[in-house]
Amino acid sequence: MINDIYDVIVVGAGHAGSEAAAAAANLGSKTLLITMNMQTIGQMSCNPAMGGIAKGQIVREIDAMGGYSGIIADKSAIQFKMLNLSKGPAMWSPRTQNDRMLFAEEWRIALEQTPNLDFFQDMVKSLIVENNKVVGVITSLGLQIKAKSVVLTNGTFLNGLIHVGDKQLGGGRMGEPRAFGITEQLVSLGFEAGRMKTGTPPRVDGRSLDYSKMEEQKGDENPQKFSYLDSPKLEKQMSCHIVYTNETVHDILREGFDRSPMFNGTIQSTGPRYCPSIEDKINRFAERTRHQLFVEPEGWRTVEIYVNGFSSSLPEEIQMKAMKHIPGFENAKVFRPGYAIEYDYFPPTQLHHTLETKLVENLYFAGQINGTTGYEEAAGQGLMAGINAHNKVHEKDPFVLNRDEAYIGVLIDDLITKGTEEPYRMFTSRAEYRLLLRQDNADIRLTEKSYNLGLAKEERLKRVNDKIEQSNKLEVYLKDTSLKPGIINPILESISSAPVDQAYRSSQILTRPNITLEKLEEIDFIKAEIGDYSTEVKEQAQINIKYKGYIDKERDNVAKLLRLETIRIPDTFDYENLKSLSAEARQKFMKVRPKTIAQASRISGVSPADINILLIFLK
Amino acid sequence: MINDIYDVIVVGAGHAGSEAAAAAANLGSKTLLITMNMQTIGQMSCNPAMGGIAKGQIVREIDAMGGYSGIIADKSAIQFKMLNLSKGPAMWSPRTQNDRMLFAEEWRIALEQTPNLDFFQDMVKSLIVENNKVVGVITSLGLQIKAKSVVLTNGTFLNGLIHVGDKQLGGGRMGEPRAFGITEQLVSLGFEAGRMKTGTPPRVDGRSLDYSKMEEQKGDENPQKFSYLDSPKLEKQMSCHIVYTNETVHDILREGFDRSPMFNGTIQSTGPRYCPSIEDKINRFAERTRHQLFVEPEGWRTVEIYVNGFSSSLPEEIQMKAMKHIPGFENAKVFRPGYAIEYDYFPPTQLHHTLETKLVENLYFAGQINGTTGYEEAAGQGLMAGINAHNKVHEKDPFVLNRDEAYIGVLIDDLITKGTEEPYRMFTSRAEYRLLLRQDNADIRLTEKSYNLGLAKEERLKRVNDKIEQSNKLEVYLKDTSLKPGIINPILESISSAPVDQAYRSSQILTRPNITLEKLEEIDFIKAEIGDYSTEVKEQAQINIKYKGYIDKERDNVAKLLRLETIRIPDTFDYENLKSLSAEARQKFMKVRPKTIAQASRISGVSPADINILLIFLK
Repeated sequence: MINDIYDVIVVGAGHAGSEAAAAAANLGSKTLLITMNMQTIGQMSCNPAMGGIAKGQIVREIDAMGGYSGIIADKSAIQFKMLNLSKGPAMWSPRTQNDRMLFAEEWRIALEQTPNLDFFQDMVKSLIVENNKVVGVITSLGLQIKAKSVVLTNGTFLNGLIHVGDKQLGGGRMGEPRAFGITEQLVSLGFEAGRMKTGTPPRVDGRSLDYSKMEEQKGDENPQKFSYLDSPKLEKQMSCHIVYTNETVHDILREGFDRSPMFNGTIQSTGPRYCPSIEDKINRFAERTRHQLFVEPEGWRTVEIYVNGFSSSLPEEIQMKAMKHIPGFENAKVFRPGYAIEYDYFPPTQLHHTLETKLVENLYFAGQINGTTGYEEAAGQGLMAGINAHNKVHEKDPFVLNRDEAYIGVLIDDLITKGTEEPYRMFTSRAEYRLLLRQDNADIRLTEKSYNLGLAKEERLKRVNDKIEQSNKLEVYLKDTSLKPGIINPILESISSAPVDQAYRSSQILTRPNITLEKLEEIDFIKAEIGDYSTEVKEQAQINIKYKGYIDKERDNVAKLLRLETIRIPDTFDYENLKSLSAEARQKFMKVRPKTIAQASRISGVSPADINILLIFLK
Repeated sequence: MINDIYDVIVVGAGHAGSEAAAAAANLGSKTLLITMNMQTIGQMSCNPAMGGIAKGQIVREIDAMGGYSGIIADKSAIQFKMLNLSKGPAMWSPRTQNDRMLFAEEWRIALEQTPNLDFFQDMVKSLIVENNKVVGVITSLGLQIKAKSVVLTNGTFLNGLIHVGDKQLGGGRMGEPRAFGITEQLVSLGFEAGRMKTGTPPRVDGRSLDYSKMEEQKGDENPQKFSYLDSPKLEKQMSCHIVYTNETVHDILREGFDRSPMFNGTIQSTGPRYCPSIEDKINRFAERTRHQLFVEPEGWRTVEIYVNGFSSSLPEEIQMKAMKHIPGFENAKVFRPGYAIEYDYFPPTQLHHTLETKLVENLYFAGQINGTTGYEEAAGQGLMAGINAHNKVHEKDPFVLNRDEAYIGVLIDDLITKGTEEPYRMFTSRAEYRLLLRQDNADIRLTEKSYNLGLAKEERLKRVNDKIEQSNKLEVYLKDTSLKPGIINPILESISSAPVDQAYRSSQILTRPNITLEKLEEIDFIKAEIGDYSTEVKEQAQINIKYKGYIDKERDNVAKLLRLETIRIPDTFDYENLKSLSAEARQKFMKVRPKTIAQASRISGVSPADINILLIFLK
């Protein structure tokens, strides 16, 4: 009785699903978002924070393309920090603490205000697949809804199994039912499925903590924000706190190890390596006498506290007992115990770069279903799946971001090419061109692309073009403006930098490590000329000047590799009979079926020799 | 590992549980609120509104005693209406439309700010009962938590079974898991359990409706509020809309009757008589060609709409198809289908007037578990269960409200004495002393009692005492102030009321139907004297004067019955051998074991003759 045929149905309304739905609908696709519970749209299932190292860059990229995650993170932020400011600009990473309830509410309102987007509350239990094409979904209430494409973003809900000590509960999140049916159907269609595991720490009553025993961590003095648009700036902020575990805490936790589903074999699947449970940390780093915890508020008005770093699936009485020996937690009252959850995923080598599945046309996967972890990774995939579902349905070109264009490109290429055996998390180290993929230039990298797709609005493009123009103008001025020793030396001396004995261009002076634009502005005529530029423009120009050498070198590398990208490998290429390939390479090539030589070269276990053999055959 | 022994554990955080927890904690009991999901505290499971006829009086009573429902309804209100203003003041009933999300958020924040109140997220699967006393609970994670008393407020979650057409889903609400274990245990302890049914209408996308075809229903021009305290007043309001079904809608709905779980025997349990499904209305009132629907917004910012009056468990395609023939709904898009839900309840004749169970000491039931329907009924019971659990644990007297003191007294007395075979809803007609139980005087009736318990705060008492003092002063003035014909006749003539030929006291003039205090204030010297009294004080004095005769008569009746209340019946009274009793009365007395002659007289099927026999034996 839903007579409409949707262009895109998105299943699941977490970070991936919400971005997918927003993108497809904003591009003009008639879109339906189906969720088991409309009260839980945009839930932060785990920590009340967005961004962080490499993840903050992804949020910026999503925002630059017209996705919602940045705006919503800004609207619900209770604290902002730019991480890694002491390092180079490739490492600068924005991060917000967020009000959990407000975040979900803002997502819901934003989606409701999106044209072309319908909502339906039900559980999708199977897909309608005809001739290896998905053409709709069937819900648990038996409703058939037709669609030209379907994006699955099931998070941890597919056959979700919650573990707390030796207790197991079916559920997609604690207190929420799991979903079933989809995995079984996909497997029957030939998909390979696996199990992954993740976990979450206990939440506690902030009224029961003694903050005087903890180290306060305030937000930035001049908080920035994620969105390149005029999202609200933080006027006041809430603090987090840092504490450390100790040997007593570890000893108590060890008491529960025999009942740990992680250690007694109950959980076989792999958890996120870089977000391990506290028991895992104690176990793997037995020599360490303490681990750092972040005590994070869950919102402006709630007393609930998230104990970041204390993720656990130990029996809850062990969690509670151990916790009481953390300084400041002597009287801690637990609201919700930590738990682990196992869920189904589909190794992402089964996907095209568009996130469309290879086996079923017009079916897209995004988020944890692809074996990733993290809100930002999920949101980035959701955005790309939403765009590509729209483009396919409207017979437009696939939209793929390259590894030199975006962390999102790195993410998807890693997933498609290498697959993942454990929940995949983004790091700056995964991006070979990370100096190009900065949080400050995501708009310069991506907004025009998205505008050309029809997603980013005119306003965004105008802002970026203004920023580029201004920054160029500023760079030109700095290159054209010489500073005589008499003018610049006092400043250099004031920061113990060697004086100069002849005039230098401002831009040359600026390449010195300690010299910033702010310093140069101590010179009156420079201040008069550049004082009015915005912080963003100054930052951009400064980075371009200071890191020009590195940036140019990375661009060269990109160009070299780009040549390999242009060498395409036919889908039907006969690896089987290419005996000179190593066995491992042959096997992986047959599984992944790389589209280009460049992609082939990034597959783990593939050697330069293998690539040369391929090149010989293709040329 | 929760080492504390709680005074009161409350299971469930809906209207009943939240009020119970707040009351017990505010009274000083060490209280724990356990809920399956801390994200769903204070959910409005059905319509986004509080109050209404007889229910608004209950909310006022809860507020007068220091409960939270009134304040939270005020904080989240999007519209206020005083219903029945054209009738006598006993019928005036306040009602708010509420922002569903905000209502839940405000509940959660209010509870978090309550001292002595802890929270825990888990499902209670059984009680710890020793020697017919409850001493704690066991959760689904296996945690044992000790308590001196337990209040069960499980709503529709106990073995909840959701029906949509011929589809059935286990769940406590759509998209939320059900609870199990408690019913089975209570039955094994000797409790009688039953099944009830309730339902909810579809929610639709407000963007898809054509309001120009509907009748707008605005809020009151001068919106009042529920709380006697300084809760926020509504500055702006949202409108509801009225539409009607028609024969086409009914015909389409009838197409689905063979797949209706209500009609094909799948649902055996009884639903709320005065809140029937649309199919039930069509079926029972076949002669009616239309039924009224209220189109209610779900909040300030959401586009979601609640279709009040269209509750249904018909197959969802039938719901959707029929809906499109309602004027303005031609293009309606459904967010969530309507559904019916069956759940376990325990006939409330198994309770004392304190809401403690007769079989298990220190165990209290409140809300739908007692066979009631409605947020307000649930909240009222929760408040009383919370108070009584606290009092029992602290060896204080039971706190029972009589039928002449509060709708809450009527509600609980009806439940305990008569039981209920169908979801019990409050009506003004259920209260024999409804002229005493008005929405305007709940504070006068109840605040001092609650203050004496230690629940209502000093501030509340002071406000009530001021109101009483002022109102008395005003009444005295009006009685003492004569109005000569020359002064009053022009006013009487202006409203076509017969002129007087001698001086009359103002209070006498005021007893005329059309004369209001506002009218008398047209006389300058009266205006000068009484103009400064607050609206509430004027209203109180006016009602006391205008309805004095009726009020006095009701007070007389109360006094008469009160004498019967003082005649107590021993718990061990031997009805079995009192052969002169009618068989029905004997049976019911033995089941209910009334505490007083008055209570005995209220049992359905008991005749005055039976009461006389009892009286003879007891005297």
